[in-house]
Amino acid sequence: METEFLDWLRGRLGQHRRLPLGINDDAALLELRSTGTAPPGCVMTVDLLTEGVDFRLAETTPELIGRKALAVSLSDLAAMAARPSAALVAAALPRADALNLAKRLYDGLLPLAERYDVAIAGGDTNTWDGPLVISVTAVAEVGSRGPLRRDGARPSDAILVTGAFGGSILGKHFDFEPRIEEALLLHERYRVHAGMDVSDGLSLDLSRLCAVSGCGAVLDLEAVPIADAARQLAAERADGATPLDHALTDGEDFELLLAAPPEEARRLVAEQPLSVPVTLIGEFIAQPGLWRRESGQLAPLAARGYLH
Amino acid sequence: METEFLDWLRGRLGQHRRLPLGINDDAALLELRSTGTAPPGCVMTVDLLTEGVDFRLAETTPELIGRKALAVSLSDLAAMAARPSAALVAAALPRADALNLAKRLYDGLLPLAERYDVAIAGGDTNTWDGPLVISVTAVAEVGSRGPLRRDGARPSDAILVTGAFGGSILGKHFDFEPRIEEALLLHERYRVHAGMDVSDGLSLDLSRLCAVSGCGAVLDLEAVPIADAARQLAAERADGATPLDHALTDGEDFELLLAAPPEEARRLVAEQPLSVPVTLIGEFIAQPGLWRRESGQLAPLAARGYLH
Repeated sequence: METEFLDWLRGRLGQHRRLPLGINDDAALLELRSTGTAPPGCVMTVDLLTEGVDFRLAETTPELIGRKALAVSLSDLAAMAARPSAALVAAALPRADALNLAKRLYDGLLPLAERYDVAIAGGDTNTWDGPLVISVTAVAEVGSRGPLRRDGARPSDAILVTGAFGGSILGKHFDFEPRIEEALLLHERYRVHAGMDVSDGLSLDLSRLCAVSGCGAVLDLEAVPIADAARQLAAERADGATPLDHALTDGEDFELLLAAPPEEARRLVAEQPLSVPVTLIGEFIAQPGLWRRESGQLAPLAARGYLH
Repeated sequence: METEFLDWLRGRLGQHRRLPLGINDDAALLELRSTGTAPPGCVMTVDLLTEGVDFRLAETTPELIGRKALAVSLSDLAAMAARPSAALVAAALPRADALNLAKRLYDGLLPLAERYDVAIAGGDTNTWDGPLVISVTAVAEVGSRGPLRRDGARPSDAILVTGAFGGSILGKHFDFEPRIEEALLLHERYRVHAGMDVSDGLSLDLSRLCAVSGCGAVLDLEAVPIADAARQLAAERADGATPLDHALTDGEDFELLLAAPPEEARRLVAEQPLSVPVTLIGEFIAQPGLWRRESGQLAPLAARGYLH
């Protein structure tokens, strides 16, 4: 639904002069009037989490839900290599026990806010007869290099990722670390052409980055870093999906997906400047679409993932 | 619930250096790092509307709900006398007919966004099994006079309001005009000490403005401008509540409540510089609390309104 809706909305909105990136990236770049024509400006994003889709209150804790609500927005800001400034929290709370629930949601998100120096600028806390909904808007400031955009990948760029993929549902989707510091460091010290966070599945999000960059990608499937949780999930479910299938399609990994010139990518991989591994998993090519190499030939690879 | 929760949250949050007003006003003033120590900075607010509390989908149109979702946030920005820049829209849509519903919500809010040159910076559109929830975050820029704050009313200041009050449930709570242009004009051309928008009831919101300003207020009940809708509602309901009762307590008027020095207030009322009337309805006093004058004596006046 969201993809179709966003296509409609882009047509309906047109291009606003204060939104140089439109609504095509992980967060919106907003040029404020008072900063004049000069960047940097700020980036903004909102994510809304609902009972039954993003969490089940009966199966987890309000603290983890609150943490996740902020973390997904911070991950969007990391995707732009922007430094978070502030967040606003809006919630619709089931009437029974609303006050306790509100406190516990904040008890979960506040330590994360403190860790990244995010000022909680208030919000809107409501009670109602429906299930829990929580939405976090986060604002960040862009450094002198501007935001890290999705649409900058070029043919021959290497495909890089942080961390490992798959099986996030076993726990990581709640306790992941938004790659804020990693993105800031990479964007400052290396020539990175494009980036996004992987929220809906590695193959699906890679295909999106390709689409806005106007190129395609060949994945080296043997190089894709597979999370232990992906192996565990494949073993538990035993439904024919391999650990690699989980790594390519599960979603909610909240790792960074990057495009960098090949020599820069090799330097980055050799230096391993982050506390998480950076892995080279393929190459962007001129031919649109998602591909894998098989016996020296390109074979199509399905772009699959989790559509909210 | 929200009042108690906000008290808890204020204690939990402390004071963040980038939030000079804390979370005590209609919107949060955020000082961005890149603008250095100098104001103006920007203000941000979020409002979340839910089925059964803020609207009933069966009794209205999605277009009016979408319009209201943006308008309430714009009203918060008007309360700070800040010029809106951008908005983010997050929604949880009932699965059946979600795409059509999403489009109609936007069809309602986009004309209002265009009218006030608000860039729609995207958002998050989700489907779920619950009822409709829509949340709008809005950002504005503060002019050289800084934001219009809630906490600046002083004893002997006049109490001023725009428009008329009460009976908003008969229609105005959907189609009200956020007082953006009015607030900007008043803040620029007149010496206004404090301001807020009346969302929860004139008497309740006045008592809140008094509380943060550290003063009290005497209302001249005969001067309170009563909306036609308040008279109509009193007549229809015939439950003993007078039109004045409705004007003092109904909420969702989204008019401006202001404090100005008495001579400035008299000039403002004489000049009537707005397209809506500005009315002087009383006086701020040193003694805390809300009062009315009765046979030359002060008598307590209940601060009542609509608590979401």
